[in-house]
Amino acid sequence: MEKLKVYADRMSQPSRAVLIFCRLNGIDFEEIKIDISKRHHLSPEFTDVNPLQKVPAIVHGNFNLFESHAILVYLASAFPRIADHWYPTDVLRRAKINSVLDWHHSNLRYGAVNYVTNTVLGPALGRPLNPKAAAEAEKVLSSSLSKLEDIWLNGDRLFLLGGFQPSIADLSLVCELTQLELLDEKDRDRILFPYKKVLRWIEDTRTATNPHFEQVHDILYRAKKKFQQQRSRVAKTGTDNSSKMGTHSKM
Amino acid sequence: MEKLKVYADRMSQPSRAVLIFCRLNGIDFEEIKIDISKRHHLSPEFTDVNPLQKVPAIVHGNFNLFESHAILVYLASAFPRIADHWYPTDVLRRAKINSVLDWHHSNLRYGAVNYVTNTVLGPALGRPLNPKAAAEAEKVLSSSLSKLEDIWLNGDRLFLLGGFQPSIADLSLVCELTQLELLDEKDRDRILFPYKKVLRWIEDTRTATNPHFEQVHDILYRAKKKFQQQRSRVAKTGTDNSSKMGTHSKM
Repeated sequence: MEKLKVYADRMSQPSRAVLIFCRLNGIDFEEIKIDISKRHHLSPEFTDVNPLQKVPAIVHGNFNLFESHAILVYLASAFPRIADHWYPTDVLRRAKINSVLDWHHSNLRYGAVNYVTNTVLGPALGRPLNPKAAAEAEKVLSSSLSKLEDIWLNGDRLFLLGGFQPSIADLSLVCELTQLELLDEKDRDRILFPYKKVLRWIEDTRTATNPHFEQVHDILYRAKKKFQQQRSRVAKTGTDNSSKMGTHSKM
Repeated sequence: MEKLKVYADRMSQPSRAVLIFCRLNGIDFEEIKIDISKRHHLSPEFTDVNPLQKVPAIVHGNFNLFESHAILVYLASAFPRIADHWYPTDVLRRAKINSVLDWHHSNLRYGAVNYVTNTVLGPALGRPLNPKAAAEAEKVLSSSLSKLEDIWLNGDRLFLLGGFQPSIADLSLVCELTQLELLDEKDRDRILFPYKKVLRWIEDTRTATNPHFEQVHDILYRAKKKFQQQRSRVAKTGTDNSSKMGTHSKM
């Protein structure tokens, strides 16, 4: 079979999860960069791969697939020698992981994506910042973090659902949360700092998946610096005292 | 092992999908009614079953599980003699079904729930109707229907992804769409009628899963009548000419 192709934009958190998974598990693959800020996802070539025009997507021989959770499950099932902890064959453990992954969509993911898009990232994607939408997204994000802390990370083990080793759910959800690196530090601290278990779990997942985690996130850290520099330029020129949303709303 | 318990409110579309699945497949289960309009989902007893306080949820022996897609996958895997078409063991077909189920959350489900809640159902759940949110939800709903028509129902077979028989994805997505029955007929026709394959597929899924489909939906059809009667009362008293959203916004 032809080598696996992974179509990804490392600025997209589900793309990062798939890339890290492949690298961690020694899957032989080719990464094909789809730069969303340059509208590559709308090209006819990529639309053939994923008619929904979203990253990540994979092509494996004649088989194409999109939606990052479905991709992670497929890779864990179709490739040999993937350690069982990523997506356990035990029906009960697998069911609990599926439950977290399903919950993720309308909760942590909805909150994080909408908060970051409406405070920082929007303009780079051709969308205006929207402080009201950001405030609503923050409610969903905070409620989701509180559920992570009290329900999914309940117990004294390192990973979700009392796991000793990470699953695809840890990888997917932590990659979601790393986009908060793009925020103004005050906002990130306000949102994340009440959740001590979540903070420890992000670190534990990062440690368990390095050096791939840091390497794949490099583009995010560079974007973080760029946004920090923009914010301090805006602060120096003194044009940003009026906005409720802080410095982001002018970026 | 103790008999399976299914905690459900038949007014909730994912609850209906789980109930219909159990009945279709001869699973011996007890249905425990959680009436959301009476806040039963917030009770301490149900919070022990599902700390997220959402239906559906199941208890199977010592094992509890929530999130309807995870439940459907679990039931298809843990119970004997479930026909393979519901959740195929073939890795490629299973991956495609997972992909549709993942897509569902932030697309068809997001659009349908938010449209129905903001035009009809909100007050029964203690939430005001919001015409602006309804208009935004309609965009997501219509875009999702168009993707169902052109991508997921592409081909000349009856079910999603070219299936000859329904999968858990057909059941989940069709149960989502049946909540549109609650809408004013004009709105429902405007939204659904452009999508001929979707309309046929709803009928085919209903036929393939009857009589259970109709029996479990009975409460929805009764609610539909109630809303129709309310609308015609409002129309007769002539108090509903001002709203952009049509008669719902005054209900």
